[in-house]
Amino acid sequence: MIAEILAVGTELLMGQIANTNAQYISKRLNELGIGVYYHSVVGDNPGRLKNSLNLALSRADVIITTGGLGPTQDDLTKETIAEALGRKLVFHEETYQGIKAFFEKINKIMADSNGKQAYLPEGSIIVPNPNGTAPGCIIEKDNKIVVMLPGPPKEMIPMFEQTVCLYFESRTGQTINSRMLKVFGIGESEMELRILDIIEAQSNPTIAPYVGTGEVIIRVTAHEKDKERAEQLMEPVIRQIRERLGSFVYSDNGETMEEVVVGLLKKEGITLSVAESCTGGLVASTLISVPGVSEVFDRGFITYSNEAKIKELGVSEETIARFGAVSRETAEEMVSCLVKKTGTRAGIAVTGIAGPDGGTREKPVGLVCLAVSLDGEIVSHEVRIAGDRDRVRHVACLNALNLLRKKILGL
Amino acid sequence: MIAEILAVGTELLMGQIANTNAQYISKRLNELGIGVYYHSVVGDNPGRLKNSLNLALSRADVIITTGGLGPTQDDLTKETIAEALGRKLVFHEETYQGIKAFFEKINKIMADSNGKQAYLPEGSIIVPNPNGTAPGCIIEKDNKIVVMLPGPPKEMIPMFEQTVCLYFESRTGQTINSRMLKVFGIGESEMELRILDIIEAQSNPTIAPYVGTGEVIIRVTAHEKDKERAEQLMEPVIRQIRERLGSFVYSDNGETMEEVVVGLLKKEGITLSVAESCTGGLVASTLISVPGVSEVFDRGFITYSNEAKIKELGVSEETIARFGAVSRETAEEMVSCLVKKTGTRAGIAVTGIAGPDGGTREKPVGLVCLAVSLDGEIVSHEVRIAGDRDRVRHVACLNALNLLRKKILGL
Repeated sequence: MIAEILAVGTELLMGQIANTNAQYISKRLNELGIGVYYHSVVGDNPGRLKNSLNLALSRADVIITTGGLGPTQDDLTKETIAEALGRKLVFHEETYQGIKAFFEKINKIMADSNGKQAYLPEGSIIVPNPNGTAPGCIIEKDNKIVVMLPGPPKEMIPMFEQTVCLYFESRTGQTINSRMLKVFGIGESEMELRILDIIEAQSNPTIAPYVGTGEVIIRVTAHEKDKERAEQLMEPVIRQIRERLGSFVYSDNGETMEEVVVGLLKKEGITLSVAESCTGGLVASTLISVPGVSEVFDRGFITYSNEAKIKELGVSEETIARFGAVSRETAEEMVSCLVKKTGTRAGIAVTGIAGPDGGTREKPVGLVCLAVSLDGEIVSHEVRIAGDRDRVRHVACLNALNLLRKKILGL
Repeated sequence: MIAEILAVGTELLMGQIANTNAQYISKRLNELGIGVYYHSVVGDNPGRLKNSLNLALSRADVIITTGGLGPTQDDLTKETIAEALGRKLVFHEETYQGIKAFFEKINKIMADSNGKQAYLPEGSIIVPNPNGTAPGCIIEKDNKIVVMLPGPPKEMIPMFEQTVCLYFESRTGQTINSRMLKVFGIGESEMELRILDIIEAQSNPTIAPYVGTGEVIIRVTAHEKDKERAEQLMEPVIRQIRERLGSFVYSDNGETMEEVVVGLLKKEGITLSVAESCTGGLVASTLISVPGVSEVFDRGFITYSNEAKIKELGVSEETIARFGAVSRETAEEMVSCLVKKTGTRAGIAVTGIAGPDGGTREKPVGLVCLAVSLDGEIVSHEVRIAGDRDRVRHVACLNALNLLRKKILGL
C-alpha cells in the first residue's frame, strides 16, 4: 500500500506552523509497512483541495488528510472530500452528544457552528476525538482509503494512535512494534561505529539511529503479526546494542532522562535538592515536569551570583577566589553545602559559562562543571558543550541528570 | 506571483525530519508579497520528482526546491530538473574552487564525488553556499523561475537570506517589512472582536493574528518599495491596535516576554529574585535564557515542599495552614519574605497546582497564585489555567513575568 499525506490549512502556506503532522504520520505508516510517496499541502481553498485530492487518489491507495475539520466557514475539508467522493453528509447523533459533552466538560457554551461537526460522510467509519470537538472519519471507496483527521497535533495524534492505527493493523495484518533506545554521552559517529555491523546485518527488526539535542535515539522496529513475536525479534537485538553501548544507554523504552531519574529516585526512596548557576532553574524545572516528582524533589537554589553561592549555600569565598566560580572545586563545594543544608540524600550542583559572553581562553563559553552527591559521596565532572546559550544549558542539564543516574546505579 | 515549495528527500517521507524549510521559505515569500499555494514533498526518486516539477510548473510561477543537491548517488535534484528544463550541466570553475576552499577550511579531504557539485545548469544564477559544499542556483525559463537550494536549514537559510531574497526583492520591487505585536492576557476571540474592524479595513499593511501558547501574536506586514515607507504605513496601524488592546500588548517588535522583562529590569536598574513552587525553576530558567541577565537576576528558590517554603523563605506555618499552600496569601508572604531575605528591589513568587493530580473542588488543577513585589509594594493575582502540566507551568510563568512587567510600568 502506498500512502499520501494531504495537509489542509492556509497557516501552513503562510509559514505560521511546520507540517509536523506529516512527519508524525509518515513515521507511523512506515512502521506499519505502508510506504509514503508524497506529502502535499494546500490552503483552505475548495478548488485546490479538490484537485489535490484527485491527484492523490490517482497515485496513492491511502490518503490521510489533516486539518480543515473545525466549525468555522474556512473549514471545508469534510464537505469538499465528501462531494468529490460522491458521499452525502449525514447527522450523527452520538457524535453530536459527544461534542455537547465536551463543551460541558470544559465549562463553555457550545456554539451553533459546532453542530456542523456532527455531520459526517455517509457510510464512513468514525474516528472519535477525545481531546476536541472535531471527529475524524475513514471512507473506503473503490479500493482507496481516505482518512480525515483534524489539524491540532494534540487531537490528531491520540486519534491516530487509538483508532487509525488499529484500522491499518487489521488491514495489513501487522502491528506497530518499536522500541526507542535513548543514548547519552557518546557522539553519533562513535555510536554508529560501535553498532554498524548490527544495523547492517538486520532487516527485521530495522534499526534507525537519529540525533536529538545532545543525545542519540535508536529506534528498533519489528514488523510482525503480533506484539509477542515482535518482542521476541527485538529483544536479542536490543540486548546486543546495550552490550555494545553499555551505560550510555539510559532507556530502552523511550523514557526521557528526567523520567528515568525521577523513576530511580522514587524506586530507591531518595530525596533530592539542587543548586544551579548557569542552568538557572532548568535542572529543577525539567525534573518538576515529571508528574509525581513531589515525593522525591525537596527544594532548589538558583545561585546565579557569587554572593548567592556564598550566602545561600555557604560556599567559601576562598574556593571561588582560588578556583573560580566555574570549577569542579566550586561545584563540589556547592553540592556538599547543599545537602548539608537541605538534608536530602542526593544533591546536584551545576556551574558553567552558558554564553554568549563571559568566556576566557582557559574557561571558554560552554565549559560546565557538575557535581552530584549521594549519601555523602561526591562525584564531579567537567564538560565542554558546543552551541548557543540554550543548547549549552540544555545539554548541561542532561549531563547533570545523567551523572546522578550513574551514581544511583553505581555505574 | 504564485509560488510552490517542492522538497526532495526520502527522510521527509520516512518521518525522520519535519519540513521546516517549507515553513521558513513560506513565511519569507509571504512577506515579500509572493503567495504560496502548495507545498509538496517527494522522495529521492527521479521519476516522481520530474512529475512533481512538471505539476508545479503548471500551477505556479516560482518553484523553490530544497534538498537533493549533495554529492551522493541519491542526490539528483539538479540533474533531474536540468533535464526537465532542457538545460545542460556545465562545469563552474569558481564554484569548484569554493568547494575546495571549504574542505581546506574544515581540514578535511575533498572526495571526488564533491566535484559533481561544481556542475550547474547552463545559464543559471549561482546561489553561493557559505556553510556547505552544495551551491544552489536560480533558473529563469518561459516566465517561470526555479530556485534550487540544499536541504540542511543551516545552509539553506543563509543562502535564502543572502541571495534569493535580494533576487526576489529586485524582481518584485518590494522589501520584507513586518512587525510582530505580542499580546498576553486576553483571549484570541476577545482580541479579534476588539480589532476586527481594523483587520477588515486594511489591505496594506495586512494584519494577521495567530495563537501561540497562552499568548496571541499579531503580524503586521507592509508591502512597500523601501523600509521607510513601509514603516510609515505600519506605524499608524500599530498605534491603533495598541490603543485598542492597551496593556495587553507587551511588545511591538517581536520580543519575548522574558526579553521585555529583562530589558525593563536593566533599563531601570532593578534587581530581581524569585521563589517558585509549581513552576519549579521555570520562571528563573526562562529569565536566564536571556543573555546578559546576570546584571539584574540575583538568585532563586525552588520551594516545592511546604517545609521548604517555611525553612528557606520564612513563610509562617500558620499562613499555609489557614489559607493553603496555593493561595494569594501564601504567594504574597512568599514574595515579601523573599525580598526581605535577598535584598533585591523586585521579587516574584508562584504557587499553584500543575496537575495531573493534587486538585480539589475548591482548588482545581490549573489554579495558580502569583505575587510580585517592587520596592516594598506587593501585588498578587490568581489565575486558572487550562491544559496539561506543561501548559499550566508555561502559562503560569508568562503570567508571573507579565505581572512584574505591569508593576514596573505602573499599569
